[in-house]
Amino acid sequence: MIKDSQIDGMFTHINQQGRAKMVDVSEKKKTVREAIACGSIYMKKSTLEKIDKGEIIKGDVLSVAQVGGIMGAKKTADIIPMCHQIMMTGCDITFQLDYEKSKVDIIVTTKTIGETGIEMEALTAVSIAALTIYDMCKALDKSMVISDIRLLRKIGGKSGEINNF
Amino acid sequence: MIKDSQIDGMFTHINQQGRAKMVDVSEKKKTVREAIACGSIYMKKSTLEKIDKGEIIKGDVLSVAQVGGIMGAKKTADIIPMCHQIMMTGCDITFQLDYEKSKVDIIVTTKTIGETGIEMEALTAVSIAALTIYDMCKALDKSMVISDIRLLRKIGGKSGEINNF
Amino acid sequence: MIKDSQIDGMFTHINQQGRAKMVDVSEKKKTVREAIACGSIYMKKSTLEKIDKGEIIKGDVLSVAQVGGIMGAKKTADIIPMCHQIMMTGCDITFQLDYEKSKVDIIVTTKTIGETGIEMEALTAVSIAALTIYDMCKALDKSMVISDIRLLRKIGGKSGEINNF
Amino acid sequence: MIKDSQIDGMFTHINQQGRAKMVDVSEKKKTVREAIACGSIYMKKSTLEKIDKGEIIKGDVLSVAQVGGIMGAKKTADIIPMCHQIMMTGCDITFQLDYEKSKVDIIVTTKTIGETGIEMEALTAVSIAALTIYDMCKALDKSMVISDIRLLRKIGGKSGEINNF
Amino acid sequence: MIKDSQIDGMFTHINQQGRAKMVDVSEKKKTVREAIACGSIYMKKSTLEKIDKGEIIKGDVLSVAQVGGIMGAKKTADIIPMCHQIMMTGCDITFQLDYEKSKVDIIVTTKTIGETGIEMEALTAVSIAALTIYDMCKALDKSMVISDIRLLRKIGGKSGEINNF
Amino acid sequence: MIKDSQIDGMFTHINQQGRAKMVDVSEKKKTVREAIACGSIYMKKSTLEKIDKGEIIKGDVLSVAQVGGIMGAKKTADIIPMCHQIMMTGCDITFQLDYEKSKVDIIVTTKTIGETGIEMEALTAVSIAALTIYDMCKALDKSMVISDIRLLRKIGGKSGEINNF
Repeated sequence: MIKDSQIDGMFTHINQQGRAKMVDVSEKKKTVREAIACGSIYMKKSTLEKIDKGEIIKGDVLSVAQVGGIMGAKKTADIIPMCHQIMMTGCDITFQLDYEKSKVDIIVTTKTIGETGIEMEALTAVSIAALTIYDMCKALDKSMVISDIRLLRKIGGKSGEINNF
Repeated sequence: MIKDSQIDGMFTHINQQGRAKMVDVSEKKKTVREAIACGSIYMKKSTLEKIDKGEIIKGDVLSVAQVGGIMGAKKTADIIPMCHQIMMTGCDITFQLDYEKSKVDIIVTTKTIGETGIEMEALTAVSIAALTIYDMCKALDKSMVISDIRLLRKIGGKSGEINNF
Repeated sequence: MIKDSQIDGMFTHINQQGRAKMVDVSEKKKTVREAIACGSIYMKKSTLEKIDKGEIIKGDVLSVAQVGGIMGAKKTADIIPMCHQIMMTGCDITFQLDYEKSKVDIIVTTKTIGETGIEMEALTAVSIAALTIYDMCKALDKSMVISDIRLLRKIGGKSGEINNF
Repeated sequence: MIKDSQIDGMFTHINQQGRAKMVDVSEKKKTVREAIACGSIYMKKSTLEKIDKGEIIKGDVLSVAQVGGIMGAKKTADIIPMCHQIMMTGCDITFQLDYEKSKVDIIVTTKTIGETGIEMEALTAVSIAALTIYDMCKALDKSMVISDIRLLRKIGGKSGEINNF
Repeated sequence: MIKDSQIDGMFTHINQQGRAKMVDVSEKKKTVREAIACGSIYMKKSTLEKIDKGEIIKGDVLSVAQVGGIMGAKKTADIIPMCHQIMMTGCDITFQLDYEKSKVDIIVTTKTIGETGIEMEALTAVSIAALTIYDMCKALDKSMVISDIRLLRKIGGKSGEINNF
Repeated sequence: MIKDSQIDGMFTHINQQGRAKMVDVSEKKKTVREAIACGSIYMKKSTLEKIDKGEIIKGDVLSVAQVGGIMGAKKTADIIPMCHQIMMTGCDITFQLDYEKSKVDIIVTTKTIGETGIEMEALTAVSIAALTIYDMCKALDKSMVISDIRLLRKIGGKSGEINNF
């Protein structure tokens, strides 16, 4: 098994035959790693209002999205083909209703102690939470769009801290 | 179990206690249903070029995304909390490299014969394919953004044909 | 493959070598089937009060249990070895706080159109919802007990309606 | 990410917005942890006898429940929404037939080396084993009840040894 | 979505860009379909004898393989990338100990009512049952070989009956 | 929980009641472990040629098998009943087309840092990759046979290095 730890500026997931591999991380150091990712789902103002009222009175759409997102984060290695299995030590999701731009913002923090970064788990949680909101509102609103899913911050590992704020 | 088929303009996933439920579709008719969804992943031009060359010579990043997206579509009911289990009868993914806007477009078609629509499967496949591309290129590019995930077309079912082109 | 549809009063899951099999249901008729199951989780009064206040103000423990139970029902064939795969057409969960007996009651209704009953899905949903409540309260209360998980009613199929009320 | 390790007497799974989170355990110490849980499935005496004879001659119902329970324990983090992923280092299940009370007792021992306790895995294994017995006997007996699922003992971690014998 | 039903003598899983797709079967007819597959695991005679004695007294290695194989069959669409989701209506596994050739033969029958064949489920069950035997005996025998996994018979569907006996 | 670490020459997965258990590995040492497994799928020469041409021009069958095999390796503990959960740190698959014997050889290397060996992951990846090739070519070739799945090499752990070359 060829070590990939020094490869830089090359695709790290492609083996010598040009096909995908799951890169060897067994010589990487275990460190505390944290990632923050975000994304948004744009919708009609009336849909946003209904989620908002629902949250106050009955609290549901975002609660389900919260659970869906966290459970989705735990499935990351199962759904992203070349992702390593990671034991996430923490995961938290925050939602912000933005009436001006008529969207819900989703912010996810994930944490682990391991050999590889935890950003795919954060990005997956954002995506699944957004898809869950979509699913729960789709009878009302056929025009929703999920956008701006990206990494905000990554701490730990060889590359140190990355900030995309 | 209260029938939900006539509810319109209300959240269809919330039960009488204000908590989520999986809506009853057992009185809906089985029809052929099809959905087309799309989305894009924005990246550095140099990343796009490397995917492109890879595709021509050895075809890898997009091949893995293709498989990840199709397998992800089959997991939709497992990852989206209130989604019904659906036996997808077909799923196809097309990628388009857009050098001008420095992005990869992902277009997914899904098909089923069933009581409920197949759009969540198409949207999930787009999301998982985009996350797979992200995962495979993230060593090269820390600034990728996944955006514009939306339903393009939906055929079949009570609401007939929906077009968001 | 030996047909099992007439076997009555015998274990239907054991093959001729005495080992388990997944019984052949391909000659059974597709009918609308419904099941209602229930169960309870006993806890300290103080724990019950905290769930109750949580539900009123922010609604969380039972919301998570609701989602966990519904997603668990969808996984029934994946976790119960000899269960057939079933496409559940509806699933609903209701909770009742019982201060007198210091417990939460969980009632689940499941529905399908298929060749086999849907009671295992209802019982699995009750079990997973109870385990979820246990998990979310276990830091507070080490003495919880999950009990009385049973089938209340089953409609559809050869055996007609069964009532355990 | 707010550290939860000192929180005591409060729900540890609820974030600041009042929605669920997966608590951060990354500062907890890795120790050997063990849990013992139990539960029972009550049934007709004739059903118990058939399981018993089956066990002697061909050994099936409890063998399937044994496998179902162990595989279920490995799925705990996948089915209980806020559970951390744990690498179980051992899992054993014992069954006892109790003719006097007409029930099967299920006792599960689980073990791990990790930051969080392993009791949810033990309780999940008991539940899935009981559901498997239910599934395999349900053609014979419509009156089975699963009860008394609880933690017997927990060793390791900050709270030391807990005994509910 | 291009219809694939007439394509013959070509790869049915490759889309127009040359990448994999899940072929459209929505115009295929639902018929009763059955498949029989087999395979063998070769081992030391002493290993075979230990399985055999175990089987007579307490029935374990093959019981676990039986459950593993059946549960594996239900996961086929989850693990084989381009497989359609199929609701298997029946699955049975038979083992034969062959002392002369020092191997265990595994024979699996699967059944469904659906648009596509059920042979991948049968072949997957054989493979998972063989891997389970391997796993349970590997402490004793480092020289086991899994071989001769193949389709014996396929009934139903456009191609009629196929016999490889 | 009875420690199994010294048991040698006995089945390590059977508990005192004669039923399966997941053996306790919590006293085993964490070491770097690697395994290499292989296997072959025999097919018609014309099928082999089509895979080969496909690989050169568009590269598909083996790319899908590569992804299927790697994802399958990550699911090993989910599909092999008594397997421990392992966090694989690397996985690579190589294919060799053998025109003389009309077969595709599959070689898989897996790596981990853990208490138990990683050979089941390598053998599972070989099996799933072979089944994937079978699935993608089965419209063309009804006579394929999967054979010779075995462990080539195992490094690390108490038993040191094992070579079956």
